[in-house]
Order: sequence, then structure tokens, then C-alpha cells
Amino acid sequence: MKKYSITIISTGSEITGGKSQDTNSMWMANELAGLGIKVRNFLALPDDPEIIYDEIISLKDKSIQRKDEIAWFILTGGLGPTEDDYTVDVVLKILNKPSEIVEKARLKLESIYRARGRDLGDLLPAVLRQTRIPADSIPLDNKVGIAPGFISELAPNINLCCMPGVPPEMREMFTKRLLPKIRDSISPTKMYRAEKFIWNQGESLYQEKFVKNHPILQTGRIEWGVTAKRGYVKVTYLSPEESDLAKILSDLDKSFPDSCSDDIFSLMPKILIERNQKIAVAESCTGGWVGKLFTDLAGSSQYFISSLVTYDNIAKENILFVNSETLLKKGAVSPEVAIQMTNGLEKHFDVDYSLSITGIAGPDGGTDEKPVGLVYIATKKKGQAARVLEYRFPGNREIVREASSHNAMFQLFKEITQ
Amino acid sequence: MKKYSITIISTGSEITGGKSQDTNSMWMANELAGLGIKVRNFLALPDDPEIIYDEIISLKDKSIQRKDEIAWFILTGGLGPTEDDYTVDVVLKILNKPSEIVEKARLKLESIYRARGRDLGDLLPAVLRQTRIPADSIPLDNKVGIAPGFISELAPNINLCCMPGVPPEMREMFTKRLLPKIRDSISPTKMYRAEKFIWNQGESLYQEKFVKNHPILQTGRIEWGVTAKRGYVKVTYLSPEESDLAKILSDLDKSFPDSCSDDIFSLMPKILIERNQKIAVAESCTGGWVGKLFTDLAGSSQYFISSLVTYDNIAKENILFVNSETLLKKGAVSPEVAIQMTNGLEKHFDVDYSLSITGIAGPDGGTDEKPVGLVYIATKKKGQAARVLEYRFPGNREIVREASSHNAMFQLFKEITQ
Repeated sequence: MKKYSITIISTGSEITGGKSQDTNSMWMANELAGLGIKVRNFLALPDDPEIIYDEIISLKDKSIQRKDEIAWFILTGGLGPTEDDYTVDVVLKILNKPSEIVEKARLKLESIYRARGRDLGDLLPAVLRQTRIPADSIPLDNKVGIAPGFISELAPNINLCCMPGVPPEMREMFTKRLLPKIRDSISPTKMYRAEKFIWNQGESLYQEKFVKNHPILQTGRIEWGVTAKRGYVKVTYLSPEESDLAKILSDLDKSFPDSCSDDIFSLMPKILIERNQKIAVAESCTGGWVGKLFTDLAGSSQYFISSLVTYDNIAKENILFVNSETLLKKGAVSPEVAIQMTNGLEKHFDVDYSLSITGIAGPDGGTDEKPVGLVYIATKKKGQAARVLEYRFPGNREIVREASSHNAMFQLFKEITQ
Repeated sequence: MKKYSITIISTGSEITGGKSQDTNSMWMANELAGLGIKVRNFLALPDDPEIIYDEIISLKDKSIQRKDEIAWFILTGGLGPTEDDYTVDVVLKILNKPSEIVEKARLKLESIYRARGRDLGDLLPAVLRQTRIPADSIPLDNKVGIAPGFISELAPNINLCCMPGVPPEMREMFTKRLLPKIRDSISPTKMYRAEKFIWNQGESLYQEKFVKNHPILQTGRIEWGVTAKRGYVKVTYLSPEESDLAKILSDLDKSFPDSCSDDIFSLMPKILIERNQKIAVAESCTGGWVGKLFTDLAGSSQYFISSLVTYDNIAKENILFVNSETLLKKGAVSPEVAIQMTNGLEKHFDVDYSLSITGIAGPDGGTDEKPVGLVYIATKKKGQAARVLEYRFPGNREIVREASSHNAMFQLFKEITQ
């Protein structure tokens, strides 16, 4: 692979104003990572021609200073017909060149106007603006919308590529026409990628226990990363050798035998839908969070029947038939109540799996015997006995609640898959 | 306001690698917009100390060139205990200063170790790393996690602020400790502040209908901002004159008579606790989100009894006694079913107020007659008839669900306070 540097630039005042999430940068970086190409940085800029001009000039200067690198600045946004679409004008100023109309784009615009029954005389300069690119640049067809993209050489081996910000237009253009050009210019080796979740373990424990002692990870020929989540960590490995990944994943399973999984959030719905199985949940301290997590996904109605959030004891009794004596003697946060909650679900629903959570989220309500963070999670398969696990989550109310919700889903996943 | 420039920097190879969406930048820009403060640019960088160093130096140099501006570089990420957490080391190199341990953070770390029954000898240097900040920098308490943030002066009026990347840690730190400092540095006169929520209205409507025509807002002597939330906007006004604020708030009430409120998320719990009243919720499309929002707050057990998430129709029938014929004839997403859901709650619980939500969150399940985004929200006071409102929320599944949850809470608030 040659020396290279890639910067992704998103323009739009709605992005820097905090009104719109820029999803294009992440999407492109992920596509590039799939080919083993790393992005140096993302930049988001407002629709301000002076700022865009300054930043591109500064990127160019810094790339020239770094010497002998192939640079790609991939910019999205600002190619539309409206007054705040400045991208082409800024690039014209940088290149000191005139613009030219891309004939293909103009014809497409005309045919759309004709189809709408509007006169070609309506093709005002403002509308035609979006078919312009700088002279001597390489046009990139827009198969989804109107505005063409383009690649301009700012200096030898320093390329600025501009694309529309509308995601489907950008994605088609990027995948089909830009990505092959970038890959060919730096000819990377193919990277294989693997991801695992490790449950109820901190990031530092994973590092101490696994990374520090692993022969392959210590060689440096593998790239890896850790994303800390509530109640689990997500670990990612990238390697040119598939066999390295296989070895690491197998060692990881051995190091964390009961607490390692694939991405359960995408896997569990798939399994349930394939098997046509149904689930129901009973929540206390998580207050609806587990229900929310399940129903975040489109299609959850195919397997998710209900979550009964029995926050108050009266709700545990009235809705889930939890024994008032058990509540009195053992307390709402007890393995017995967790189990009775799954039984209560089965009285209402003919589901394949039941899940319950009861715990002390804090900040109040903890005692020496039952501190904040104590949580019981029970799972039950129809026709079998319930299983219950005790957790002690560190952290504040929000952390305890989210870690509980995530680990409840993991325990249900284990119940479903074993 | 003085001349200023703000850059938000997110660090993390999982961000530039396309594995994680950076949501921190947008969130901070949105909060800053709430005070009328604009962000110049966002930057995302990998966990690479050389790149982070280069970029900060280059930001500093460019800010010095722009002259007489107050600059804030707000960086998140890289403050954790692991090997790829480079932020403090990079800043030490830039400042040419040693690090120092923040005693408060070290004590917190120790107490967590003690609570887990682990020996203090386990406090390895790797773990202690996250309690360091550069000498002579201003520490920022981390109330949610361990690693403290800090503010370092790179040059006169050029500040680098580093915070953890974990969103709840960063958010608490940003709102409570950093945002006031930024505001004071840019606009140091004492300002009175007022905030209102406007429900189920877009930002542009608010601008057209209110801001454009308001005599005081047009004078420029007031600073104002808008924070876009799901299902509402939060408007903030800052003025050296209290009387200006009173006038604006009263005019706002007149312009949005049914859709303007104070912060219901803090007000509603207070009212319910004072009155010793109880509530219960029945959810469908929101899947537990409303329950989660109520129970996010400590003390919610004083008024929140239950949320019954009857996602599947069978749950609506079995748990809430919704009439199967009504479900068949009117559909699950209908005012009739919303009302029956509140009635079902009253059969289980002796609560003062009941709330129900049923709707089509999408992406599937919409028809011409009942499109995605159609949502019914019913509220009922004990002994009175239920009231139901129809909403048509624009946006994707997540937006519809969150906007529904928020507006359901607003309708309950209105039921409680009128």
C-alpha cells in the first residue's frame, strides 16, 4: 500500500448547528475500512464559502508538507440548486477555473421538467447551477438524482472529490465510481474483520486478561479496538490473515466462556423470526428500557408480545400475581420475585421465552445487604424451570439501568440459543 | 458577543473507522445553539497521538492567525484507562507540562474497587492513568464516571477542553461545568435566562410565526437559541433585562396557547410527589420508551406505578381488556383503542391519571388511510372521561417513537395541571 491520507468533509449548517446528524462520513469510512483503507479525519463545515475555502486550502497545504502521499479529500453537500449551495463556486475559486455544464445532467434535468409538464424556459440559471462542475475535472454520474459529482486535482496526487450530500445519491456514486478509483490509487491489501461482545466485563479487565497476553495481538500485525458499552464491551479485530482472526476468536471464547457472544441485538431477532417464536418481558428497575430496546427494531412485532413494567409492588401483585408474602419476606429485589415474574408472564401469554428483571437502580433504596446495583435477571423457556442470575453493577442509576437491560437481553439470548 | 470560534473534536478510531457514529458533536452543537452560539467546525480523529497533536497545533495556529478571537477546542474521547487513550499524553506534549492526579477522581476509583471487593493494590498504573490531567489545567468533575475532564490554555484566549467520550459522562460535564464557562467567555455581561418548550412544532414554524415578528427579538438586545428535540423545540432567551424576558414569555404563551410549557420533565414529578398522586401508562408503538422516560428519574417510584407495554394485539386484549371487536373494526391504531387502553389501566390500578399511546412507528404497517407517523394519545383522570388526541409525526421509526413518547408526557402534564 502506498502512503496515503483520506479526509472526509461534510458540509451543511444544519450539521454544525446540531440539527442534523452527519451519517455520510461514518458510512463512507465503514466502506473504506472494508477494503482496509483508513480515514485520517472527518471534518464538518457550515455552509459558509469562506470557511470551506480556508479549510480545503489548509488541507492541501498540510498534505503537501507531509510529502509523497496520495491525498483524497472527499466532500459531500452543497451541490444543489439553492443559494446556500456553495461547493462548486468554492472549488472554482481554488482551481481558478471556469465552470462547465455537464451535458448528461442537463438533459436529465430537462426530461424531468418535461415529464412534469413544465416549460424548458423554466430552466432558470438557479436550477441549472446544479449541473455545473469545474472545467477539466472528472465528472461522476449521479444515477439517483441530478447534480453530478466531480474529482478535481488540487496538486499532483492531491484530489478533491465532491458529491451530493443526499445519502442515496452519494452512496451509489461513492460505491460504483469513486471507491474503485481510490482503491486503485493506493492498492491496499484486503482486510478481514471480526467483532465480538464481552458481557459484564470492563474494558481494562479485557485488556489485562486478554490483549496483554495474546501472542497475535502483541505482534502488531492485527488492528483492534474496543468500544465500551453499558454492561459490555464490543471488541473489533482487523487482519490481512483470516486465520489470525479465527485463532483470536477461538481464544476469546476460551478466556470468556460464559460471557462472549456475537452481536445479539441483530442475531436474536433473526433467530426468533426464523423459528417463529415469541417472547414477553417483565421489568421493574429498568422501567421499560428492555421493551424499548426490543421495539427499537423494525419487525419486532413478529416476536415481541409485551413488556409488563411492574414498577410498584402493587403492579407486581395485580399484574404478575407475585405473592405478597414473598414480596414481604424476600423483598421485591430477590431471585424468588424474579422467578415469579416470569411465571406471571406465562399466565398471560403463550410465549416461548419469558424474561424478567428486578433490581435497585438507586440512588436511594440500597442497604448493606442489598446495595444499589444489585439486580436479578430471570429467564424461562416454556415448560422448563426458570433460571435466575445475580448481578452487581457498578455506577449510577442510568448505568445500572442500561447495563441491566443489556445483560437481560444477553441472558435471554443464551436461553434461546442453548 | 465577542468574536469567537468553536471547534468540536471527537477522537476514536472506531469513529473514523466507520464503526461508531459520533453523536457527541451534534449533541454539543445543539446545546450551544440553544444559547445562540455557532460552531465553526467538527473534526473527528483516530486514536493516533501524532494526528491528534498535529491537528490541535494547526487549530491553534489558525486561530492565532484569525486574531482577537476567543477560541474553544472541545475534544471528547481518549481519557480512559487503556493503551489507546492518548489524549492526556498529547496535551502534556503540547503544553510541555507534567501530569498530576486529580485526588477526587482517585478516591472515587478506590471506593469503586473497594465496593467490588478488590484490593487497592489492584490500582495498577494503567487504571490510575484515567485520573490524570495536565498540571495547571482546570479540572472538570466527572459526576457520572471516573475520568475527569480539564481545560488547558494553549495561548491567551485559546482554550482546549478535553472530556470523556462516553455520552452521559460528557453531557453532564458539558452542561453543568463547561457550557457556562464558554458562554461567560464570549458574552460576559450578567444575563437572565428563560426557557420554554414548544410542542409538536418545527423550528422553522417557530421562527416564521414568532421570532420574525417579535419587536424585542428583532432589536438584537436579546440572545436567543433553539434546541431541536424530538417532538418539541426548546427555546432559550438570554437578556440583561428581566422585563424583556417576561414580555417574551407572555407573548409566546399567546402565540402557542396549547403547545407551550415549562420543562415538564422536571415539573411533572414534582407536582405528582407534592400531591401524592399516582400514574400508570399503557404503551404500544413506543414499546416501553414512556416507562423508561418516567423511571429515568430517581424518585419515580413515588408516583409511577406501572407501564403495560401491550405491543401485540393479544396483549392489548389479555392485559388491558381491549375489545377484540374494536381491534378488528377500528384497528389497534384508533382513538377507540387508545381510550380502552386507559380504561384497562384503571381496572388494574387505583391511579389518579392514566396515559396511553398507540400508533404506527414504521417503517412498515402504514396505509394511505393510516400512514406511518399516525399516533393516538389518550389521557384520563380518575372519575372523568378520557381525552384523546391524534398526531401525525414526520420522520423515521425512531423519530416517531421518541416524538410520541415526549408528546404523551406533555399531554399527561396538561391533564394533571388543568
